[in-house]
Amino acid sequence: MAPTYRLKTRSTVHEFDLIHALRKQHTLRMPSVIRGIGDDAAVITSKAGQWTVLTTDLLTEGIHFDLRTATMAEIGFRAAAANLSDIAAMGGTPQYLLAAVAIPRTGSSRHVHQLYRGMMAACRPHRVRLIGGDTSASCGGWFISLTLIGMVLPHTALFRSGAQIGDHLYVTGTIGDALAGLKLLNEPPARVKRHPHTAALSAKHRQFLIGRHLRPTARVAVGQWLSTHGFATSAIDISDGLSGDLRHICEESHVGVEVNLGALPLSPACRAYAASRTLEPMNVALTGGEDYELLFTVSPHQRQRLERTALTRGFSLTRIGEIRPYRFGIQALSLQGERHRLANTSYTHFT
Amino acid sequence: MAPTYRLKTRSTVHEFDLIHALRKQHTLRMPSVIRGIGDDAAVITSKAGQWTVLTTDLLTEGIHFDLRTATMAEIGFRAAAANLSDIAAMGGTPQYLLAAVAIPRTGSSRHVHQLYRGMMAACRPHRVRLIGGDTSASCGGWFISLTLIGMVLPHTALFRSGAQIGDHLYVTGTIGDALAGLKLLNEPPARVKRHPHTAALSAKHRQFLIGRHLRPTARVAVGQWLSTHGFATSAIDISDGLSGDLRHICEESHVGVEVNLGALPLSPACRAYAASRTLEPMNVALTGGEDYELLFTVSPHQRQRLERTALTRGFSLTRIGEIRPYRFGIQALSLQGERHRLANTSYTHFT
Repeated sequence: MAPTYRLKTRSTVHEFDLIHALRKQHTLRMPSVIRGIGDDAAVITSKAGQWTVLTTDLLTEGIHFDLRTATMAEIGFRAAAANLSDIAAMGGTPQYLLAAVAIPRTGSSRHVHQLYRGMMAACRPHRVRLIGGDTSASCGGWFISLTLIGMVLPHTALFRSGAQIGDHLYVTGTIGDALAGLKLLNEPPARVKRHPHTAALSAKHRQFLIGRHLRPTARVAVGQWLSTHGFATSAIDISDGLSGDLRHICEESHVGVEVNLGALPLSPACRAYAASRTLEPMNVALTGGEDYELLFTVSPHQRQRLERTALTRGFSLTRIGEIRPYRFGIQALSLQGERHRLANTSYTHFT
Repeated sequence: MAPTYRLKTRSTVHEFDLIHALRKQHTLRMPSVIRGIGDDAAVITSKAGQWTVLTTDLLTEGIHFDLRTATMAEIGFRAAAANLSDIAAMGGTPQYLLAAVAIPRTGSSRHVHQLYRGMMAACRPHRVRLIGGDTSASCGGWFISLTLIGMVLPHTALFRSGAQIGDHLYVTGTIGDALAGLKLLNEPPARVKRHPHTAALSAKHRQFLIGRHLRPTARVAVGQWLSTHGFATSAIDISDGLSGDLRHICEESHVGVEVNLGALPLSPACRAYAASRTLEPMNVALTGGEDYELLFTVSPHQRQRLERTALTRGFSLTRIGEIRPYRFGIQALSLQGERHRLANTSYTHFT
């Protein structure tokens, strides 16, 4: 997520102005920096020609998590998953973790251990090692800043900037689930009874959606497969919501996009949630942040090979649109066949 | 500083228990991890045999800095210097910076730019590049988490664990200045007049000490020189105070040490400060944290060559003691020739 430099809530500081200003002021061209500020992760190269991928992600209490609705282990898991997802979006292999944690006065040693257990539970399947960090007292709440380091084969890293006109747009898994899960967690308990349509959302759906928010899966294997086979021309992980992350790809690649709303992959649970809350399911999918699915573009020549090998690998991919010229902008094709400009409705956190 | 995992204030979480538990639980032996949790920085090696040094450092408002006594640029400078110093203590060359910053509601875009300007001012002499980071809103104060990545020639990194019985103990520059500077900044304005001896501290001394606290110099060139020439058997940067950092070397190297208090390098300003506040200057030097000087051990056979070449390089080094067997513990030799056990009086931050 990190080198994107995005500010996660409304504030007096404007996120994109800040990113652009920092990029302009502090990024000096250097041959060893393959990619600096402005992608899911930074990429540097060594004298021996190896490529290293680095990302850092900050989670703060009251902005990214709420101790009333998540355990310390779940917070740790999500923090690690967010970083793993950034490495996945670069097509990299995550290897080493550094964790900086500020602990409030109410925090106990037990809380800290649970936090680390959660982090390492997310890291274990990828054999990521904790190699260091820092710990401090906090006068505010909990602050968790993780840095994840990985590798990617030289010249195979996936950037946001490579999308070409005519490329197909794909997304992994299903989208909108994490937002639905977060909204369910934040509903006051009384709400469930008050809502006339609540019956439509089963306990199983509820559990699935909350799980997708609290224990997201970083698509590391898909990212590696896309990069090593040279399938993707650009990639990003969905952490700002589909509409926001599409915008990043379009800006960095200087292209437009047409998204087929009817093709958006929605889980039955997300559809049930939208129905129960009389929401438009497409809106949940477009604005939902932190699904940590991969959004990527593929040349038309690669389409068949991609879809065939995805099937044999058991990867769930959905083609949801096509890259257009820059002047086309970001447009959505509705179920009724109507086109409209897509508003930037990225979800901003719960403050 | 980072992979030490130290907790910077008194809290319900015991710092060393936490470090040991994390080390035990989460450090799995892996050939590519040369050094994990428990040194100034982590060291990893790549397939091509290159060694990378990584450190992360967390600074939190109200614990590590106070906006009433430091500008955002000074806070940024110190944050970067703390990380540069960790790389220096490993004998490494700092190269890339990632910065995660949580911004309170009172924070403006101007504050953020000043913070980055300060960081980059500390980094510029070392040609360190900002390659990424993350930004978030904060419900508490400012939180700054930096990760610095550097390189070190294979098999030359300086660890805390290499001190041998009979080695000489050295320190760079002068110690205690940063603590004196911090105390001066935190004195209520009325105090200056109330204090009977204040006249002894000139404005120039005051300025020097405050400068040493707000704009510390990381000893990167000395660290590189010690590692490339193979001079040092162990090294650490002084960030917890001399007595605390000596303890780290002794624990990691499983040795004891005798410190000659009469030899401790004190600046005229620090002596003047101690005199003006009727403090024992040795105590300021022993307890003062965040001087970011290097503390290192050298084999007796190397002593002459070290001191001779230090002179030609213009490096200021002082021999302050000798490594003893573990059972000797940590003892100080007073000016009167008396020995006593050195208490662990590391300075804990101002909350």
